[in-house]
Amino acid sequence: MHIGILTSGGDCPGLNAVIRGAVIKGTRIHDRSFVGIRDGWRGLVEDDCFPLKRKRVRGLSGMGGTILGTSRTNPYEGGGPERVREVMARNDMDSLIAIGGEGTLTAARRLADEGIHVVGVPKTIDNDLSATDYTFGFDTAVSIATESIDRLRTTAEAHHRCMVVEVMGRHVGWIALHAGLASGAHAILIPEVATTLDQITEWVLEAQRRGRAPVVVVAEGFVLDGEEEAVAQHGLDAFGRPRLGGVAQRLAPMIEDATGIETRQMTLGHLQRGGSPTAYDRVLATRFGVGAIDAVVAEQWGTMVALDGIDIATVSLTDAVGTLKTVPRARYDEAAILFG
Amino acid sequence: MHIGILTSGGDCPGLNAVIRGAVIKGTRIHDRSFVGIRDGWRGLVEDDCFPLKRKRVRGLSGMGGTILGTSRTNPYEGGGPERVREVMARNDMDSLIAIGGEGTLTAARRLADEGIHVVGVPKTIDNDLSATDYTFGFDTAVSIATESIDRLRTTAEAHHRCMVVEVMGRHVGWIALHAGLASGAHAILIPEVATTLDQITEWVLEAQRRGRAPVVVVAEGFVLDGEEEAVAQHGLDAFGRPRLGGVAQRLAPMIEDATGIETRQMTLGHLQRGGSPTAYDRVLATRFGVGAIDAVVAEQWGTMVALDGIDIATVSLTDAVGTLKTVPRARYDEAAILFG
Amino acid sequence: MHIGILTSGGDCPGLNAVIRGAVIKGTRIHDRSFVGIRDGWRGLVEDDCFPLKRKRVRGLSGMGGTILGTSRTNPYEGGGPERVREVMARNDMDSLIAIGGEGTLTAARRLADEGIHVVGVPKTIDNDLSATDYTFGFDTAVSIATESIDRLRTTAEAHHRCMVVEVMGRHVGWIALHAGLASGAHAILIPEVATTLDQITEWVLEAQRRGRAPVVVVAEGFVLDGEEEAVAQHGLDAFGRPRLGGVAQRLAPMIEDATGIETRQMTLGHLQRGGSPTAYDRVLATRFGVGAIDAVVAEQWGTMVALDGIDIATVSLTDAVGTLKTVPRARYDEAAILFG
Amino acid sequence: MHIGILTSGGDCPGLNAVIRGAVIKGTRIHDRSFVGIRDGWRGLVEDDCFPLKRKRVRGLSGMGGTILGTSRTNPYEGGGPERVREVMARNDMDSLIAIGGEGTLTAARRLADEGIHVVGVPKTIDNDLSATDYTFGFDTAVSIATESIDRLRTTAEAHHRCMVVEVMGRHVGWIALHAGLASGAHAILIPEVATTLDQITEWVLEAQRRGRAPVVVVAEGFVLDGEEEAVAQHGLDAFGRPRLGGVAQRLAPMIEDATGIETRQMTLGHLQRGGSPTAYDRVLATRFGVGAIDAVVAEQWGTMVALDGIDIATVSLTDAVGTLKTVPRARYDEAAILFG
Repeated sequence: MHIGILTSGGDCPGLNAVIRGAVIKGTRIHDRSFVGIRDGWRGLVEDDCFPLKRKRVRGLSGMGGTILGTSRTNPYEGGGPERVREVMARNDMDSLIAIGGEGTLTAARRLADEGIHVVGVPKTIDNDLSATDYTFGFDTAVSIATESIDRLRTTAEAHHRCMVVEVMGRHVGWIALHAGLASGAHAILIPEVATTLDQITEWVLEAQRRGRAPVVVVAEGFVLDGEEEAVAQHGLDAFGRPRLGGVAQRLAPMIEDATGIETRQMTLGHLQRGGSPTAYDRVLATRFGVGAIDAVVAEQWGTMVALDGIDIATVSLTDAVGTLKTVPRARYDEAAILFG
Repeated sequence: MHIGILTSGGDCPGLNAVIRGAVIKGTRIHDRSFVGIRDGWRGLVEDDCFPLKRKRVRGLSGMGGTILGTSRTNPYEGGGPERVREVMARNDMDSLIAIGGEGTLTAARRLADEGIHVVGVPKTIDNDLSATDYTFGFDTAVSIATESIDRLRTTAEAHHRCMVVEVMGRHVGWIALHAGLASGAHAILIPEVATTLDQITEWVLEAQRRGRAPVVVVAEGFVLDGEEEAVAQHGLDAFGRPRLGGVAQRLAPMIEDATGIETRQMTLGHLQRGGSPTAYDRVLATRFGVGAIDAVVAEQWGTMVALDGIDIATVSLTDAVGTLKTVPRARYDEAAILFG
Repeated sequence: MHIGILTSGGDCPGLNAVIRGAVIKGTRIHDRSFVGIRDGWRGLVEDDCFPLKRKRVRGLSGMGGTILGTSRTNPYEGGGPERVREVMARNDMDSLIAIGGEGTLTAARRLADEGIHVVGVPKTIDNDLSATDYTFGFDTAVSIATESIDRLRTTAEAHHRCMVVEVMGRHVGWIALHAGLASGAHAILIPEVATTLDQITEWVLEAQRRGRAPVVVVAEGFVLDGEEEAVAQHGLDAFGRPRLGGVAQRLAPMIEDATGIETRQMTLGHLQRGGSPTAYDRVLATRFGVGAIDAVVAEQWGTMVALDGIDIATVSLTDAVGTLKTVPRARYDEAAILFG
Repeated sequence: MHIGILTSGGDCPGLNAVIRGAVIKGTRIHDRSFVGIRDGWRGLVEDDCFPLKRKRVRGLSGMGGTILGTSRTNPYEGGGPERVREVMARNDMDSLIAIGGEGTLTAARRLADEGIHVVGVPKTIDNDLSATDYTFGFDTAVSIATESIDRLRTTAEAHHRCMVVEVMGRHVGWIALHAGLASGAHAILIPEVATTLDQITEWVLEAQRRGRAPVVVVAEGFVLDGEEEAVAQHGLDAFGRPRLGGVAQRLAPMIEDATGIETRQMTLGHLQRGGSPTAYDRVLATRFGVGAIDAVVAEQWGTMVALDGIDIATVSLTDAVGTLKTVPRARYDEAAILFG
């Protein structure tokens, strides 16, 4: 009997290292074999699978993307547990490793409740899961954002401009917080903390007074205090994001008007999830993969692997899913000392 | 008597290395002294200058931006040769090194025609000057674009998407051509070559058939064949750029409609001109700075430095300005062999 | 009264971010002022100090090295507590932030025992302090080592060679473990785990059988099982390192002889501690700096800041110093699954 | 009939991009097919070949190493033209693209003289071929060296040390010259220019007087003026390199003794030829590959492709081989202005 493995949701640097870690340990130590499922739950529902040999995972620890492909398909919209059981049986799978975010882990929990042998690996580039200290992909996203902000700063300084940089983070501001701290931003705006244009203006003008080109880092989910109504009127898009264009595009002209400083904006977008993972993420992802196979062998169905300090642990999916890990106010205030 | 030095126009990685090269050679070999002029021609017109000592240029070869600041001021709109002469006299300058693009070099040529002692250093991140093989900044822009496209490709492949990446190049497609070649793009779209949506669709579908996530690299100044009229109706903005949003934003939905492949887009924008210059640009810019001071000492007024093969030469500003170095059709066709 | 601040021992990416974090929070929030002490304890013993203003720490979060300079001077060899007290008084310092490794923190503990107001910040690029999950500098060292190994692998593969790469780690193997895992090494050799040449040969040959160019990552403090005697005969150098040339230089010919595979070696040395810190280290170091000033204000003398999961804590220097955090056998075995 | 393709000699970033360029253009435009020859001339002499399809060259433009493998075998030691002709016939090859350095191109010229259909592509990471402005690999080596020197400088500055960095260049100093210029080195030592220890000492002390940590960049083939005798006594190794340990290892203690400044050294070695090629090298290598296939189709036997300004040309192998492109004295003196 084989172990099925799938990656689901938005892609995230480190997915391949998880797969590699699981397959090598499973093959060499536990003498198990694997089935790769294409494009997340879609491949399971549509029976699009293939034997996943050790040779295929060679050299994957530093490779971005996912060799399995991914999609946003939900197994409960495509047949549910019956269909999952059927396809697993047809491919001689007795268990499943599901690598994905909130949605995937919720589906995995429900499938486990139905008796399907599933173990989860948390994937959230936004770092918004409370059951694990960090997940792979986050460090890479922060690194790319930091390097990009470092670059944008030099051109802003040459032109005495203000630069507004939008990073990922629909519901939480971890990437903005870390990349903003790392790059010495003069203001960091996150969904968790209501901030007025007056406050932002004050930070920007103070930075300018000290001779700096002001840099504002903003999480994509940030809504300006007072802007909620406008956002509400225009409604939200399918992902719960205001339909008014990116937040950096909205903010830049407001800041230019309020401060009189020429202001440019940049949205880092897909760049943040692309390319080779950082060494940190490669190590964490490899350990998650190894931990997942251990959980399968220990038959810890309905759990997921997690980072606890410097150790890999398993936690119940029921506990892991449902609460967002937001940036605590104290962490934000600690960072805000460095603003302006 | 001092030598004045200014940087003008959009900033460009390598400006500081030019300044450093000129100041060190001028100070140590020719026993000359320098005046830094703030923010390009603005500082000259408004008499915003300061003594520029060797100590100030220390460590600059790898630093992005410009320690002199820059602006888009034109000296002919702010007083003309009389004012320039006056401010130069007031600051004991007998000559001027003007580092800038087409506009700056044209102004420098006119000032030289009026008898002002000026030497130019070409700065064009787009590589659109025919009088020099390459200029500094171009290699850095191509490197950043290539690295970014490499990253975007991994996420496109995980999701089986098409990715449209917009790079700099309002009038010429050199950055798109080189970054597209370096990253193995499946289509490169440049202002010099009219291309239809049908042709693009064919390249994208062919790449998909071969199992790739299609990558389209487009210069910001590219206009789709047949789209000129729409662009003309909406007019151009102050920089001669179509007022219809970025070209990647326009193209992505068209490609998605035509191919049925989910398509995302990214505009690299200011990222391409930020950060530390590549080693190539540092060497070229340092040599340009050294060459500029040699031209001053040789009293070659009205010339600019240029790269000819592996040598630094000087060319007349009259010859250097006015004709755009576009991508020759043969170079594009050579690249197009690799499309699809 | 001012707060003195010094950096001591081998330099480490992130030192400047600690200084910046401490100075900005101290200045803006607690209205305190700072004295910079040059070159660690040397500056304190020799009264080589200067006012450290906020302006001086501008832009430091991403800068390698230390603006304060560093040295390996021990305060107990240069006057002891009396002299420290005297110089502190002369410069109006009422407290001290000492950023350094094992030696510095031990000295800080002794000074605190004598009643001097000192707070420590742990600096160990090797990650060998048990009282903190991680310290800044380690992630940067692992990143540089990983990137270097990735590069060396391509040339090894072109020539079908084995590559032995020596990384830092005199007493512990954390850098080797993480960089080896991140780069997919075929063998990782660390001081904590005795390993025979036969075992290494087996791993190398297995990698070759699978068509790979074998990569061996070795911590500088590793001694081959059976080689201790030779090392003992030749004695150790001042830093407790075998006097027989680097370990990679010793191992490479042995591996070549034993396997018949052409083998090259590279010692990464100082590269690993140079350059701009990673985003991870910048954030951690900034938080350590902020935490240190909080400890000073709270008068937690004789403590140091530490990372506990995702929180910054303070721990007693007495508890923090003295036991090395070695790589646990279980962590090594987890990694060894991927060898060969 | 197929076209054979081989890579020979030390590996060099960009080899894969040459292969890709040749195979894609040959396949798509000229309807030709290819045979890959393993490990350079060894594969030809030993008949170790395989069909090289377009699919195999996918994604290669940014990949370091060579998918064909390489070796230092000389065809004239393993059978000569008769054997080459025999193996070519056995594999239905009517022509050959040989990518390699001085040795390979000399062999190719001799084979062409014997009537074998061969076209060369120059590969010299040292940039020592006079018949081409630049070759691929050189820019990557300079970039890696520059980045490494930038890193080493920060740690040197923290400790007030002098740093001696050895880069590639057995016979010519191009990498040292460019990397030294790009990183702002205080002395550059190259094989072409005799330099005394007194002169080096003067540069190092002057840099120290100006408050810098002196950085000395030295090409591996540099011999200190006066040291030739010692080198001669100890003889040269198989590659014409002094048998006295690396030049950086020899120089560092001499500089420390002469200046009284603590001095460390680092040899960059294999790092410089590893990893992904720069965008510059990818473009140049791709164009060389495309140019090589054009030369084959045009039956320009006995020629090699070359860069002339911004154009790809072909030159006779007879003219191309034999004279080393050394650093002209004027280029060195231009750089030396910035020393000290």
